[in-house]
Amino acid sequence: MSTTTTATAQASNLSFVLNKTHDVKFEERPRPVLSDEHDVIVAVNFTGICGSDVHYWHHGCIGHFVVNDPMVLGHESSGTIVEVGSKVSHLQVGDRVAIEPGYGCRRCNACRSGKYNLCPDMIFAATPPHDGTLAGFWASPADFCYKLPETVSLQEGALIEPLAVAVHIVKQAEVKPGNSVVVMGAGPVGLLCAAVAKAYGASKVVSVDIVQSKLDFALSFCSTHTYVSQRIAPEENAAAIKKLANVPNGADIVIDASGAEPSIQAAIHLVRMGGTYVQGGMGKSDITFPIMAMCLKEVTVRGSFRYGPGDYELAVDLVATGKVDVKRLASDVVPFEKAEDAFKKVHEGQVIKILIAGPNEKI
Amino acid sequence: MSTTTTATAQASNLSFVLNKTHDVKFEERPRPVLSDEHDVIVAVNFTGICGSDVHYWHHGCIGHFVVNDPMVLGHESSGTIVEVGSKVSHLQVGDRVAIEPGYGCRRCNACRSGKYNLCPDMIFAATPPHDGTLAGFWASPADFCYKLPETVSLQEGALIEPLAVAVHIVKQAEVKPGNSVVVMGAGPVGLLCAAVAKAYGASKVVSVDIVQSKLDFALSFCSTHTYVSQRIAPEENAAAIKKLANVPNGADIVIDASGAEPSIQAAIHLVRMGGTYVQGGMGKSDITFPIMAMCLKEVTVRGSFRYGPGDYELAVDLVATGKVDVKRLASDVVPFEKAEDAFKKVHEGQVIKILIAGPNEKI
Amino acid sequence: MSTTTTATAQASNLSFVLNKTHDVKFEERPRPVLSDEHDVIVAVNFTGICGSDVHYWHHGCIGHFVVNDPMVLGHESSGTIVEVGSKVSHLQVGDRVAIEPGYGCRRCNACRSGKYNLCPDMIFAATPPHDGTLAGFWASPADFCYKLPETVSLQEGALIEPLAVAVHIVKQAEVKPGNSVVVMGAGPVGLLCAAVAKAYGASKVVSVDIVQSKLDFALSFCSTHTYVSQRIAPEENAAAIKKLANVPNGADIVIDASGAEPSIQAAIHLVRMGGTYVQGGMGKSDITFPIMAMCLKEVTVRGSFRYGPGDYELAVDLVATGKVDVKRLASDVVPFEKAEDAFKKVHEGQVIKILIAGPNEKI
Amino acid sequence: MSTTTTATAQASNLSFVLNKTHDVKFEERPRPVLSDEHDVIVAVNFTGICGSDVHYWHHGCIGHFVVNDPMVLGHESSGTIVEVGSKVSHLQVGDRVAIEPGYGCRRCNACRSGKYNLCPDMIFAATPPHDGTLAGFWASPADFCYKLPETVSLQEGALIEPLAVAVHIVKQAEVKPGNSVVVMGAGPVGLLCAAVAKAYGASKVVSVDIVQSKLDFALSFCSTHTYVSQRIAPEENAAAIKKLANVPNGADIVIDASGAEPSIQAAIHLVRMGGTYVQGGMGKSDITFPIMAMCLKEVTVRGSFRYGPGDYELAVDLVATGKVDVKRLASDVVPFEKAEDAFKKVHEGQVIKILIAGPNEKI
Repeated sequence: MSTTTTATAQASNLSFVLNKTHDVKFEERPRPVLSDEHDVIVAVNFTGICGSDVHYWHHGCIGHFVVNDPMVLGHESSGTIVEVGSKVSHLQVGDRVAIEPGYGCRRCNACRSGKYNLCPDMIFAATPPHDGTLAGFWASPADFCYKLPETVSLQEGALIEPLAVAVHIVKQAEVKPGNSVVVMGAGPVGLLCAAVAKAYGASKVVSVDIVQSKLDFALSFCSTHTYVSQRIAPEENAAAIKKLANVPNGADIVIDASGAEPSIQAAIHLVRMGGTYVQGGMGKSDITFPIMAMCLKEVTVRGSFRYGPGDYELAVDLVATGKVDVKRLASDVVPFEKAEDAFKKVHEGQVIKILIAGPNEKI
Repeated sequence: MSTTTTATAQASNLSFVLNKTHDVKFEERPRPVLSDEHDVIVAVNFTGICGSDVHYWHHGCIGHFVVNDPMVLGHESSGTIVEVGSKVSHLQVGDRVAIEPGYGCRRCNACRSGKYNLCPDMIFAATPPHDGTLAGFWASPADFCYKLPETVSLQEGALIEPLAVAVHIVKQAEVKPGNSVVVMGAGPVGLLCAAVAKAYGASKVVSVDIVQSKLDFALSFCSTHTYVSQRIAPEENAAAIKKLANVPNGADIVIDASGAEPSIQAAIHLVRMGGTYVQGGMGKSDITFPIMAMCLKEVTVRGSFRYGPGDYELAVDLVATGKVDVKRLASDVVPFEKAEDAFKKVHEGQVIKILIAGPNEKI
Repeated sequence: MSTTTTATAQASNLSFVLNKTHDVKFEERPRPVLSDEHDVIVAVNFTGICGSDVHYWHHGCIGHFVVNDPMVLGHESSGTIVEVGSKVSHLQVGDRVAIEPGYGCRRCNACRSGKYNLCPDMIFAATPPHDGTLAGFWASPADFCYKLPETVSLQEGALIEPLAVAVHIVKQAEVKPGNSVVVMGAGPVGLLCAAVAKAYGASKVVSVDIVQSKLDFALSFCSTHTYVSQRIAPEENAAAIKKLANVPNGADIVIDASGAEPSIQAAIHLVRMGGTYVQGGMGKSDITFPIMAMCLKEVTVRGSFRYGPGDYELAVDLVATGKVDVKRLASDVVPFEKAEDAFKKVHEGQVIKILIAGPNEKI
Repeated sequence: MSTTTTATAQASNLSFVLNKTHDVKFEERPRPVLSDEHDVIVAVNFTGICGSDVHYWHHGCIGHFVVNDPMVLGHESSGTIVEVGSKVSHLQVGDRVAIEPGYGCRRCNACRSGKYNLCPDMIFAATPPHDGTLAGFWASPADFCYKLPETVSLQEGALIEPLAVAVHIVKQAEVKPGNSVVVMGAGPVGLLCAAVAKAYGASKVVSVDIVQSKLDFALSFCSTHTYVSQRIAPEENAAAIKKLANVPNGADIVIDASGAEPSIQAAIHLVRMGGTYVQGGMGKSDITFPIMAMCLKEVTVRGSFRYGPGDYELAVDLVATGKVDVKRLASDVVPFEKAEDAFKKVHEGQVIKILIAGPNEKI
């Protein structure tokens, strides 16, 4: 049913495990085995840290997802195929891949109609009760591993996941060439949304944040304009951005990648009549929302949740063709044993994105 | 440039004018004349009263639209063509028409791209500073008058306007055959949304209101289920409606035709993953909104504002083909001189819809 | 892993097998067994005959699908669940179902993006080398069996398949309320396309055929107009239909369910500027096609192939809600042993649709 | 009603007039005057020659458009505003503009619904009976003149028209980032389609032609691959292109900008399942077309005719942002008196695109 290289036979499956809030440990766990002939086993090379990982580490839960049992963290990973099931034809042992860390049941209405990210039975890495990818090895359906072209490195491969998040957001926003696009928030996802919007042909890409240094990076990365959000009424921030970007009737598209209530409010006042707003950022469950402004302008508002069919493929393509220079986001790569330090750095906001090498990876 | 029938030459252009809040008068105004070769003059037969008319009468303004000068009220009208411009080919003197009471500039991006309802220079009846249709005659671009088939009466013709509002809302919602649709609010627009959703092939149409008698009417008019909204948490109302309509995963489409904050909140909790919510009702500018529920379910939220290309044509067709029995909404028809009484009845909620005959109309 | 009722334990799996062109036989074959915990076993109750079944019987092939080995015919079936896999939750033994007779690999781009009908590895009943449903039992993934409501009979259930074909065609055509729709061909699929278009709210539904009696049935079944196609230039047939249906600028939508070259040519001349044409019927590989008329009118042309997500559900709903009276199509029901006679009758055009009872079905 | 600069008061309105087939003349015609307060008068700076101009010159007609009376040729022009109507606010005397040479009635269904290019009463330059732009001055509705940014030259401005044709084709094709796009034909429109597809984010852009030198230009201009079409079966050309571009399942999008029957046939065999084909090129009215291949792959086929809302704006933006280096297409600029020579050169295929200076333009 499968082929294993002897080279990896002795490799470690050391895993970075969250016991409970603020309590992590390294644990040597049994290596995953092929349980389906359509699966592959991947040796994990690099893993990025996401805000959700940090949130579980700090709070032990996200919404109704609660860490009741020890759970391996991590879900932004690249790896190398070490074993393939008998029915897998598009991957071979040795292939370098970006790992899409969640998959649906393939049988519900959502899965069948091309929206597997909305599958109620999704299995997703590092979302309780499912373990994540901060380990030596990962078992995955083969169709959720995406071969990296030679020109894309494994470190870039670990950044495909947040880029796929941005791709999905920008697809939900239906950005088209010539559009003016404003992105609220210049964290990793906000930066990547801005870069993807640019790749979609947006003529104006405005990044908005409260931290000047993030905006400086945005300008050097992809944005055409930046704006430091002020402690003023949302209508006033909206008006200032319209003036700055010379879009007197409002922006075609506004994307929120901040989750912050004032940003969302400003966003609705900023979008033009008939324009589109996409909620990408996570934040408070309920906020004060300018519903009549949305209604009277016939704004289309959409949520965006993870990624779906074609998003990973496009993310890989955007990196391979040089349209998004994703590696600039990763300021640091640390060995596996420094995982907890890496979490601290991300939590303290010292870095945009940090990569953790797999336990078998020499760096 | 035009042809006038002598029969109407002596007819009155008596107009029902709002001076200021609660101060109305009847005034004989000069008859409108053809000022463009693409225009027509219409003798007004019947006019319905809309919540916005009542709001101007009571408050003198809606949002930033303020009645500074005396303004003729009314915008839901049918009429008979009495004069046609030299370049009008599809209408003749004597044709009975539904009047679309607003038109765009035809030159801005919105007008050129098929969204004239979003034209910033819209001229709209009974929206300051433009006079309305509660008068003897109305001048209109010919392409904003829609000939009524023989089987559609002039009283039904006056109900095409609110039906077009509902058509536009349902189009924004992209209702498809087999869908489950919940409509919050069973006033005239809510009832018509429910009826149009049914005509679009919705399998389940649930009307929700706080008044049982309105729901009784809804059930007899078009709805498959009704629900009396309770003073409980929005999640609980949503859960109750899911159970009632047997849509455990939520409704495909939820339309708000109430403008009420608790309805909007329940609506977002009620719509299924990947479903659509449309804001049709007018209400408070800002409300507490479950933004994360919207985001994580990838709900599409849209506003709906008035009506656009094709909406009036479809509204006429729905009446002509018997799919929407619009005349059941009009419980009463009163002569022109009873206009103020009619406003009072609508304000007191005594009727679903009341029609006022034109000043030259015998009833 | 499963539950079997003893009642069916002794039942026959007699199968109607095509050896080669015009050479059929009845053969007692082994009953299928559950090979996947997501599967069910269905006892077949009724099966309709499709043009493709007849084509295999007569020619031994369709395009590059060639019957090299004996193959069970039939793919339009209803049945009763007799065994369910351990992971099946939405079906129980005894449930009456419509069977969707083909399913994709669930892993290719087409399957993942909601277009499983375009899966290159589709397994489809009675398409070589896969056996069909004219047998006692059928094994199927549970998610390709659709429970029939109590009000829908098993004979109607066998007609869901051609109705789903029509649903898919009408979806490809994006029929909307108020549209004028012309359907070329009044065979089973053409009739059902007309009926589904009506259910989608089309105001005018014109059936076109060369046989008057089929059009008489169409008029009594759903169509608003009918036209006997003449041996004249396609432009002239198009002009005659425009006049008949009073659509001087052309029809919004034209559907071909005939596969006949003159029909397709007339269809393109008949559709309005910016309208839509869908090719549903099978016919010659290459035809003379008015490409410039298509181009200059910016017609959207689409193919339609089988059915995809949601089509079966909607077909069942259309029958359950009484919108399509599908049982009127089946003029006859014959016992299993009369299967070959039934094929002859269909081939001779004596009937619209004939149903064959399953080998264990008493009629 | 208007403002005229004295500088242009004495300027010539010399016009290049087609009397009948092959019979052209230069004629001093009266300058157009403002006839509508929304209009502008433009002094024409540069005009490109289009295949349709050459076709009228050679044949005196295109389809049912016949040159019965002398007609000024030309419709691809840039110019400078010399007079503005009293209601024009977005343009001033002296503004440099790209001229969109046709406009609809603004009142028909097509115009109102955002498809003015399908208006049956379109007024279009150099389409009988309407004069074209190869003259000193041109009167236009102000909203059909697009101000050029400072960085875009007037010569580039004259190339906006063919670029807008390509923009419209690519929009009809719904090209998305990451797509593989094949363009049949490497004439001006084919080259621009390839460039616009690239700007839309296509990863692979394959140009196909029978002339190697055109493909060499395409490769230097924008294409990622080129293919010299062979005199072999269309399926074989399709297979060769799939291999060349490494798209074994076919191209996402195929655009025909050739109008040639073998190209169209190959295109349908080349497009992937569920892909899109757009007919942009003009050619024979009727061709042999692989209709079943189109049907079974559920290809979407669309025509493309001229340009509509937003196309000119995007074309200007693509030039201004450097995404399409349109000036490379114009190999030559000649004075007005050399207009007939320019037509000859284009007819002989000596140049991709040639520009004719306006009669008042010094070059």
